[in-house]
Amino acid sequence: MNINFEILATDPHCGARRGRLSLPRGEVETPVFMPVGTQATVKTMTPEELQSLGVSIILANAYHLYLRPGAEIVQAMGGLHQFMNWDRPILTDSGGFQIFSLAALRHLSDEGVTFRSHLNGATHFLTPEKVIALQETLDADILICLDECPAYGVSEEYVVRSGELTWRWARRCQQARSRWDKPLFAVVQGGMWSKRRREQAQALVAEGFDGYAIGGLSVGEDKATREAMLEVTVPELPHHQPRYLMGVGTPEDLVEGVARGIDMFDCVLPTRNARNGMALTRFGRVVIKNAEHARSSRPLDEACGCYTCRNYTRAYLRHLYVAREILAYRLLTMHNLYYYLELMAGMRQSLAQGNFQEFRQAFYSQREYGGAYSG
Amino acid sequence: MNINFEILATDPHCGARRGRLSLPRGEVETPVFMPVGTQATVKTMTPEELQSLGVSIILANAYHLYLRPGAEIVQAMGGLHQFMNWDRPILTDSGGFQIFSLAALRHLSDEGVTFRSHLNGATHFLTPEKVIALQETLDADILICLDECPAYGVSEEYVVRSGELTWRWARRCQQARSRWDKPLFAVVQGGMWSKRRREQAQALVAEGFDGYAIGGLSVGEDKATREAMLEVTVPELPHHQPRYLMGVGTPEDLVEGVARGIDMFDCVLPTRNARNGMALTRFGRVVIKNAEHARSSRPLDEACGCYTCRNYTRAYLRHLYVAREILAYRLLTMHNLYYYLELMAGMRQSLAQGNFQEFRQAFYSQREYGGAYSG
Ligand SMILES: [Zn+2]
Ligand SMILES: [Zn+2]
Repeated sequence: MNINFEILATDPHCGARRGRLSLPRGEVETPVFMPVGTQATVKTMTPEELQSLGVSIILANAYHLYLRPGAEIVQAMGGLHQFMNWDRPILTDSGGFQIFSLAALRHLSDEGVTFRSHLNGATHFLTPEKVIALQETLDADILICLDECPAYGVSEEYVVRSGELTWRWARRCQQARSRWDKPLFAVVQGGMWSKRRREQAQALVAEGFDGYAIGGLSVGEDKATREAMLEVTVPELPHHQPRYLMGVGTPEDLVEGVARGIDMFDCVLPTRNARNGMALTRFGRVVIKNAEHARSSRPLDEACGCYTCRNYTRAYLRHLYVAREILAYRLLTMHNLYYYLELMAGMRQSLAQGNFQEFRQAFYSQREYGGAYSG
Repeated sequence: MNINFEILATDPHCGARRGRLSLPRGEVETPVFMPVGTQATVKTMTPEELQSLGVSIILANAYHLYLRPGAEIVQAMGGLHQFMNWDRPILTDSGGFQIFSLAALRHLSDEGVTFRSHLNGATHFLTPEKVIALQETLDADILICLDECPAYGVSEEYVVRSGELTWRWARRCQQARSRWDKPLFAVVQGGMWSKRRREQAQALVAEGFDGYAIGGLSVGEDKATREAMLEVTVPELPHHQPRYLMGVGTPEDLVEGVARGIDMFDCVLPTRNARNGMALTRFGRVVIKNAEHARSSRPLDEACGCYTCRNYTRAYLRHLYVAREILAYRLLTMHNLYYYLELMAGMRQSLAQGNFQEFRQAFYSQREYGGAYSG
């Protein structure tokens, strides 16, 4: 297929670009952040709440849905969108990362991967072909090839062999498609070796996918290494196709990823941190359980327009969190996602207006101010 | 004060009545169900969601808020309504029931009650005067006198002495008021002895409270005993004042309570059961984790108009519940509260239309049908 992706603006000083991905279930303005809906729900949120935040696409995990409730149940309920009451696009990841991070006793062969479920220990065998069929059965809008995500710190030799397997699997995924209307992205691995990242990108691009994901980052490396890997990988990817940085997502990562030419992001950070009592704001992090907030009549962020900041004090949020009330997780998730969506919208606007560098500068200034303020 | 409570209709065949309680923060159409917001939040729900369900008054627990976050913090945040972003009436219970059911090492004297916090073991001493000051500090709309709730099965002699203490404490609560614009309800105890219930009601009515709560039920007795206690107590209470049955609330209890002249109810059942995966419907209970629902494309109740039933299948709800997703608790709570609010609205309408007995009959027919259906 030819993916319907338009580049609307580019920044002359860095790789950043403003784009629009058109999918049958809706348009996605890029750069975009995709909230994570691992188990067919973005934790704590209703679909209507996500829409009110301007969420245009979410991510769901094929691995988790394969294990529970099972793809055939989702299919019997009319597909993933109807099952979870979300009618905008969904990207499903292939499960590669989950198999290598969650599953027990995995065994890799050229044919596929045998592993035990992290839920009940049952043995499963997944192949590239099965993973594509799985994502098609779920009726996802963007599919991801099965890949091997090598652990941080393995040898270059291992990364080379693993990269070859990821490439062979990607080719098989390509051939296994029965739905050519659904974009398929390959995953670029290559560990922390610039040469291997470049080689892997080139080998996958030669196969002609609809978009490219960059995997195997945020696995333990420092920020400079992560950014260096982006800098060597992105130039190898086709300009007119979307680039998706998998699972990477502090606010700084989003800004620096965009600056290096990334169009799509996902990360559990805003939702998971919310459930751990951490709010992310323009001025830095707020740990809501801290005693300093017990009598604070301030919102999380005075300038934030989210439902939480418009209606609740830090004192109330702290009380709810300390009392382990579900509303605490809801309100903090709402704020964090609002902040992420606003940050992406701000970057898109600055790219459209030609002042991305000023935006990036202001982003860092605010965070420094926050550091000074809370110190 | 003279409480602003109008009786709008009565049923000629039983004690049921339709009324309207006018409070400065809003009107409460009775009979009414008050969702429980123990810790300044009706678990899992936002205030806007409660309003969308037609909730006109909620209950909060003075005992819990006294221990955490502390009444002075709530006051510093502008009172309980502003703290929790709920501008309609709030009834606070006195903590009597919580002290006798949750607190450790309680010691009772005529002066008051010493107990250890169930949260951190710290020792506290509460008196009737302090409990009134506490509820006034929270800025609740209806206050409840401190009472002793005798355990189920204690001797008649104990109940008599306990009832005398509850009466003396109620008088002291009456005298301790500084806000005569806030209705104060006394609590009728008396165990399972008809004579003691009557005596206690008479003694409290002689003191002239704004309304009367009936406590000490749903503590272990059977349904027939509970109803018998209502039948002896209610006739002793003034016709033109509201009657509140504390903490009792299966759907049958609501119908039979209304039939015996109760105007106000609260119970954790709809919200707690939701979090335990149990939906309450016109046709009986649905245990969502049961395997029979795994492939069910039905809503919880086809005829229910709630958000959950309009948008989600039992298969999806079961998946969320089994996966321990917070959205499961939200969606089940939403449904259960909707059902309770609809049940009360149905009773109010039937009383206004003069067909409460038909409503009561239809209520039981549907439940029998449900039993036949699921069998
Ligand atoms: Zn906010
Ligand atoms: Zn419903």
